[in-house]
This record gives sequence, structure tokens and C-alpha cells, in this order.
Amino acid sequence: MTESDLPVVQLTPGRWGDPAHPVDLPAAAVDALKHLGVRRPAGGTVDPVDRPGLAADQLAFLTGIVGAEHVSTDLDSRWAHTRGYSTTDLLRHRAGDTSDLPDAVVYPATHDEVAALLAGSASVGLAVVPYSGGTSVVGGLAPSRRFVTVDLRRLDQLVELDEVSRTATLQAGVRGPAAEALLAEHGYTLGHFPQSYEGASIGGYAAARSSGQSSAGYGRFDQMVVGLTLATPRGTIEVGRAPMSAAGPDLRQLVLGSEGAFGIITSVVVRIRPRPTERHFEGWRFENFDVGLAAVRRLAQDGPLPTVLRLSDEVETAVNLADPDVLGGGSGGVLAIIGFDGPYNQATADVLTAAGGENAGEGPGETWRVGRYRAPYLRDPLLDEGALVETLETAAFWSRIPALKAAVTEALVAALSETPPLVLCHISHVYETGASLYFTVICAQSDDPVAQWRTAKQAANKAIADTGGTISHHHGVGTDHREAYHAEIGPLAVEALQAVKHTLDPDGVMNPGILI
Amino acid sequence: MTESDLPVVQLTPGRWGDPAHPVDLPAAAVDALKHLGVRRPAGGTVDPVDRPGLAADQLAFLTGIVGAEHVSTDLDSRWAHTRGYSTTDLLRHRAGDTSDLPDAVVYPATHDEVAALLAGSASVGLAVVPYSGGTSVVGGLAPSRRFVTVDLRRLDQLVELDEVSRTATLQAGVRGPAAEALLAEHGYTLGHFPQSYEGASIGGYAAARSSGQSSAGYGRFDQMVVGLTLATPRGTIEVGRAPMSAAGPDLRQLVLGSEGAFGIITSVVVRIRPRPTERHFEGWRFENFDVGLAAVRRLAQDGPLPTVLRLSDEVETAVNLADPDVLGGGSGGVLAIIGFDGPYNQATADVLTAAGGENAGEGPGETWRVGRYRAPYLRDPLLDEGALVETLETAAFWSRIPALKAAVTEALVAALSETPPLVLCHISHVYETGASLYFTVICAQSDDPVAQWRTAKQAANKAIADTGGTISHHHGVGTDHREAYHAEIGPLAVEALQAVKHTLDPDGVMNPGILI
Repeated sequence: MTESDLPVVQLTPGRWGDPAHPVDLPAAAVDALKHLGVRRPAGGTVDPVDRPGLAADQLAFLTGIVGAEHVSTDLDSRWAHTRGYSTTDLLRHRAGDTSDLPDAVVYPATHDEVAALLAGSASVGLAVVPYSGGTSVVGGLAPSRRFVTVDLRRLDQLVELDEVSRTATLQAGVRGPAAEALLAEHGYTLGHFPQSYEGASIGGYAAARSSGQSSAGYGRFDQMVVGLTLATPRGTIEVGRAPMSAAGPDLRQLVLGSEGAFGIITSVVVRIRPRPTERHFEGWRFENFDVGLAAVRRLAQDGPLPTVLRLSDEVETAVNLADPDVLGGGSGGVLAIIGFDGPYNQATADVLTAAGGENAGEGPGETWRVGRYRAPYLRDPLLDEGALVETLETAAFWSRIPALKAAVTEALVAALSETPPLVLCHISHVYETGASLYFTVICAQSDDPVAQWRTAKQAANKAIADTGGTISHHHGVGTDHREAYHAEIGPLAVEALQAVKHTLDPDGVMNPGILI
Repeated sequence: MTESDLPVVQLTPGRWGDPAHPVDLPAAAVDALKHLGVRRPAGGTVDPVDRPGLAADQLAFLTGIVGAEHVSTDLDSRWAHTRGYSTTDLLRHRAGDTSDLPDAVVYPATHDEVAALLAGSASVGLAVVPYSGGTSVVGGLAPSRRFVTVDLRRLDQLVELDEVSRTATLQAGVRGPAAEALLAEHGYTLGHFPQSYEGASIGGYAAARSSGQSSAGYGRFDQMVVGLTLATPRGTIEVGRAPMSAAGPDLRQLVLGSEGAFGIITSVVVRIRPRPTERHFEGWRFENFDVGLAAVRRLAQDGPLPTVLRLSDEVETAVNLADPDVLGGGSGGVLAIIGFDGPYNQATADVLTAAGGENAGEGPGETWRVGRYRAPYLRDPLLDEGALVETLETAAFWSRIPALKAAVTEALVAALSETPPLVLCHISHVYETGASLYFTVICAQSDDPVAQWRTAKQAANKAIADTGGTISHHHGVGTDHREAYHAEIGPLAVEALQAVKHTLDPDGVMNPGILI
């Protein structure tokens, strides 16, 4: 089975996955929660109360461009487009918090319709939030003023396939599994499998500078993109005449990561590869995280890299060990997962062996493969049980990784000392010069879990800044990271980005308050 | 011998190389020129007449920052910093054309001195042109108003070596061979070997988005850069906290290729690799360019790539065949060169064999290696003989390469029909989705060779635009490509870049007229 065989999952607002098919927590997990002092919260879910805000001239403007049947103003549709999937988002959703409710949801079908929406929004006083998969976990859908949502799902076509150049032009609203299915018909794969794969789409991958689980083999999404079309309130920009160019700054890399603040990406030209005919996943055991870290660094710097390369720390490995399928029921140490799209490469295994690794066989690899998109589904039942669970991530150069990992862990433990947390960590993206760190935090909810997490997150952000990490390796900036992002790049760089925004979006209608 | 063993060559203004050690044209080349109708021009070199322009308060400003001993106002120093090394530059130099003569040359030693120069230039009415190696071939040193040159040669240090992360922080003025020598002391290489290697420097590589002859193995310079420090008139920007980040647009890629229009890059953090202990170069013969093109595309898309991969077309191969060392004295077809930093990889050879290639042995590889930096030296004796010789380059996606190559060749032949040219072409940089094309044009000089080349170049630029290539794969924009560059990215993108420039350089003192 490959990723294109996966069904397209219907994500539900305020809950990851289909409530008709709830995911149960493993029994071992429920037991573990007791040790963290987790108790079921008293209150239930609160239904949202509408706060309509769309004026008649605004509605006429929207329907005039896309047709009345492609504008939704009912509460259900708008509530389904409210916020993304951070734990804070889920908690606010449960609380019926409508502060980020769009006034309408618009479904354009073409680049020209998107362009017309953006060109005219200011004239009727509308702000616009682009929505492709809606899977932001950094407040990317919660702007600073009232807005309408432009949902790109009707832009769902494979526009062009260039088999000689191995490029595909995909519209922004093509979801991950749909992109793989469209390419699979011709024998190709994109190879981009973030954890949001089932829900996220091409435009979001580009706007948020996504990175997927096979990044060791296929690269990040920003490395796959060779061309982009961006609709802005002032017109259209097309970038990418060649794989690489010395003609000025690389404008693709200015649009990638712009998170809708400059305009809406309507299509992306991506590099594609032949679909692999075989896949292999297996686990490797190391004595401790430091030994494992040295081993994955060896592969990242000298190769040969597998397609997937991940390393869990001791805590994450121990939590995974609660599942008896993993690592033969528990033998301590830390677990790495390697995967190959294509033939198994013994040379990779040899490097790991030389670095002190023990092959733990296909069992852990298969367990990881089957569960690779499962983690977000577990968050809802965990919240139901009264646990606070959230993730955060960063990246740094290799020499800073140990101090960065220690500082973030320490900051989280200190900030959550009243509800002592489990802090899990893994490396899932490696480069010659550094790697990402991905943290999962689990503890008992306090009476105000939104504030509880805000405090913990601020402590983590400070630790990241102080030890030389970036505020995000793949989740993006949104509103949640805006302040830390500005501190990271400095006021002059922020001004430069604001100047770009002001040029492309002089009335500030695009995603106000997000990124810049 | 590896690149770090090469001596640092003293480039001479208006002439590539040391006039005390002239490079002779091969006899076969002199013969060939006769067939092109080339005749020695009548006039000789005209000495420049000074046009001093620096006011007393401007001189005081400069000496106040760097000291009087680090400001040159004599004609010789300024003439040596006039323009770069395009054929047009050489011709203007020979004609004693002082229109692009700087008013002074300043040699700061630190980032802070650079920052102070930029912060205060507007107050004394100075425009600034950064100068690291001075090897621009696109008019990158010829701004639209009078200026002083900031020569970065005193910024020549390896500031930091992080062996765990495999990064090195190099100051902007470190020349190519010096960078290799500094890194070789610790067992590392940068792996960046553009044809300007002997003269160009780290800051120029970054500002002009350089690409080297080993790009198949080491990547382009913009792919080696993980961090940058940019001094601007409004302050300093530091970018690059991690190998990759999802925190907004990749600002490194906004600074790379900015060609001094935003400020001066004072240091660069680059990815380094262990210095190879062996190297191999060899030639491969293909029946024709189309067969060779398919073979190099196979390697670029499916691997395994060598470190160096080049493919000459029929004409370039035939010209090279005039050298009896190459390809055994001539057997037709086209010649490819492959090179490995490290062990020879038989799998690469197997791909070439399967694609119809015949191994031509180490001879042509060694000939190429020895002569790899020689071509620019030949231009001066060719000009002496009365030949016009110049190069231009582009890149495109693979599917466009054949039409692009044909269109550019045809445009050059048509534009130079009064002095029928030889048009040579090769591919020297490959990517999964496309490749570069590098053209060399040789013909007899007309009475006005500057105008003659301008006409030819405009025809080539139009052919590039019409067939979907980028205006430059690695030479950059400068002033020569500015108009074509603006057409390529479109007016709105130009405005966005101008907004960035205006933010960082509100008085327009940085490289006025270059890039934007």
C-alpha cells in the first residue's frame, strides 16, 4: 500500500477525523494518564452562537464573482472554517468561541475568480483568509479583523504534466491524497507526506513551507516547488522559469512561507518522481539519544540517506513501548525508523550498525508506517479524558541540537510544574548542517488549559530563541509565532517584508495579522 | 592536485590574468579565425584620462571611517576597479572609456566599517558599489551615477568553523582559492569552482547567485549558504538560524542574488564537506547532442550524479577537437566530461553506457581539468587578433532545452550575419527538472564591436524569453540584463523588490541602476 491508496479523510471542524469513526485511546495510554493526574473535565462542548457580519453589498460582491451557489453564509459552513487544529483551536472550538468565525465562505473555481475576489475586496471592506486544507496549527486562520474565507477546494486539477522535465502543475486546492492519486495515474509521486497529509493541500504546503515525513528522500515542499502563481490584490505574479536562476533573488522563496499575507497561491509547479515499486520500513535501536543522534548525523552528512529517517528520544521511545508491537515489547534505549522508497539500501544499514545501532527489524517500521498519520486523531480523545496534549517544533544546526533539546524540555517542565508533563521528542527532518526537533507535551489540563498552554509555549519559545533554534521548522508562523518570528528575523527584515506586503496588498486585506 | 593548490591569480584591469604571463592562442585557433574573416584591428589601447569627482567632505567621510591609508583616489587604483570582465567591458577598457570610473576605492576591514560607510554615504551624497572579486560579466560594477567602490579584500578571514554542523563562516572578501586553502587546513572543501574561481570571492558568489563547475556534486552556491550577514544603509540583517525553517519566506534567498542593491554582504555561513582524497575525470562520446542530452538528463533525474557533468554540442566538440589531446584527435559526435570528487562510481558510467555513450577515457577529462579556468584568458588574445568572443547563458526545464538551444543559436547567427559566427554550446549544470545552456560566440569584429555585440545579445535575450528560458543561470543581472530581468519577473514583482530596496536603502546609494 502506498500513500495514494489512502482514502481522503473528511476532517471535522474542531476535531481531527470523522466523529462517526472515533479513534480509541490505547488502554496503556489511559493508564498512563492516571499517573499524570489527568481527570475528565466537567463541562461539555458548547455550541456556537452566530455573529453574522456580512453586509448586503459584500454578499453581492462575492456572489457576483463566484455565483450565489458558491458562497456559504450559514453558521455550519462558517463554523467548519473557524480556526485550524492546534490544541488551543480545539479547546476554543469546544468552548463555542466564535471570535474567529468568518462572515462567509467563498468557493472560487479558477485563478481569475480568486484574482477578482482579491482585487475587489478592499472596495467593499472585506478582509480575506485563504483556506486550502485548513490544517494550520499556528493560528494561521485567525486574523486580526473580521473576514471572509476563500476556500480553494474547487481548484482541484492537475493542470499539466511534463514528463520530460518531471514537473506537474497542480492547483492549490488539491489535497495530499488527491495529488498522489492524480500523479499515480501516470506513474509518478510527489513524495510529500506531512502528518496533515490527509487534510492539507498543495496551496497550504506552499504557503506554510511544509515538510513531510519522507523529507530525507524527497526534500521539503519548498525544495519540490519550481514554479508558483500568486494572485494578489494588485495582480498576478508568476515565478519559476527554470529549476534555478541567477536572475535576482529567488522569488519563489519569497512567496513560499508567505502564509497568505501577500496573496493567494493558486497553482504550484512541483518536481515529481517515478512512483516507487517497493517500500521498506524498519526500526533501529540505539543505546541512548546521543548515540542515535550521532548516527543520524552521520547519514545526513555522509549518506546514503534513506527516504524516511526519524529518531525518538528515550521518553518518546518508552511511550511507544507501551504498544507491545514496538521494539519487541521494550528493551530500553531509543528507537529510530528508517524507510526506503525503492530497494532496501544495505549501505545505509551499515552506517547505522557502525554507529552503534541494532537492527530491530520490520516490526517497528511497519507499526510506524501504519500509525504515521494517527497522532492527530488521538488528541481529541485525550482532550476528552482531560489531558492537555500539544506539539511544537524547531530546527537548528547540529552543534546546537543537544542544548536546544535540553533547554526546551526544561522550559516546558518548569512552566508546567503544577501539572507535571511528559515531554517526548524526536528528530524527523535532517540536513547536512542540522536537524529539526519535534516535541510532544502531555499533562493534566488545568482549569484554564488555553492559558496553561500559552504559558508553556512562551517558555518554550524563549528557550528556542536563547539556544539558537528557529521558531518553526515546518508548522509556520501564523498568529501564534508572529512575535517570536519578528524577534528572530529582526525589525529591519520585518520592515522589508511589510514593504512587500504593502506593495502587493496596499489595503491590508490579505490575512491581516498573520505572519506580519 | 586540487583546487586549493591553485595560486591566487592577480587579475589585471581590462585583461583577465597577468599581462607579464600572456596566454597564447593555440595555432589551430589562429587558423580557424582566418576562416571567420578575423583581422587584427588597426587601433591600439587608449589610456584613460582622469575625471576626478570626489569632494573634500566626501573624502573626509571615507577616511574618517577606514583611515586615509585605506582610501585610494589615484587613477591607477580607480581604473583597476572600473567595470568587470565582459567582452564589452574589455573593449571599453581598451578604448580608455572612463564613464564608469569610481571616484575612490575604499578598503574597509570590518563589518562595522562597512556598516558605517553605508549608513553615512547618503549624508555626503555618495553612491556605493560593492567590489569583492570584480569578476562581473553583466555590468554589475557600472552603476547609473557617480560612485565610490567598496573593495572587500580586507574582509578575508575564516571567522568560525563548526565541524559538528559542517559549516564555516567566511568573510565576503575571501577569494575562491583562499577559501579552499583556509578550509583545507582543517580537511574541508567548499566545492565551489566557477570559471571566475581564481578572482571571485565569497561575497560575490552570494550576491550574484553563483554556480560552479562541480555543481552536480556540491550544488550551486545558493544551496551551500545557510546564513548571511547583510550591512544595509539602515542597519544590519542576519539570516539563517537553521538549515531550513518554516518561519516565513526564506530571507537568505532574498539576499542571495540581490547584487549589492540592498546592501553589502559582509560574511556568509556555508556548508562544507570533507576534502576528497581522490578525484577522477573522464570523457564520454555520444553520437550527437540529442543522445548526449538524454544521457545527462537520465543522470540528473535518476542518478547517480557525478560531481562534474558537462556536455558539449557538436560545434563546441569540434572546436575542442582542434586540440589533438581531446577525444583522440577527432572522431566526431559530442563530448561529455564527468568528474568524481572521491571514488570513481561505476554506476554512473553504466547509465551513460546504457544511454549510448562510449567511454573516451581519462585523456579528455584531464585536458578539461587542466584547462578548466583557461577560457577567460583566451579572450584577450582573441580580441587582440580582431575576433569578437563572448559568452551568454540561460537555463530552462528539460522539455524546453532543445527549442531554446536552437532559438538562441539561430538568433545569434542571424544577428551576426555580416560576420558569420561560430556558436558553441554546452550544458554544465543539471537539475532534476532542467539544465543550463552556455553559449560561446566567436566572429570577426565589426568596426563597432560594442554595438555589434549589443545587437547580438538583444537577439539572444529575445530568443531566451520567447522560448521560456531564464535570462541568467549563473552570470546574474547587473545592468546588462536588467531590462530582460524585469520582463521575466513582471512589473509587480519588480515593484516588490523596489519596495524592499527602498526600505533598506531609502536614499538609493547602493549600486544604483543595478538589478532594480
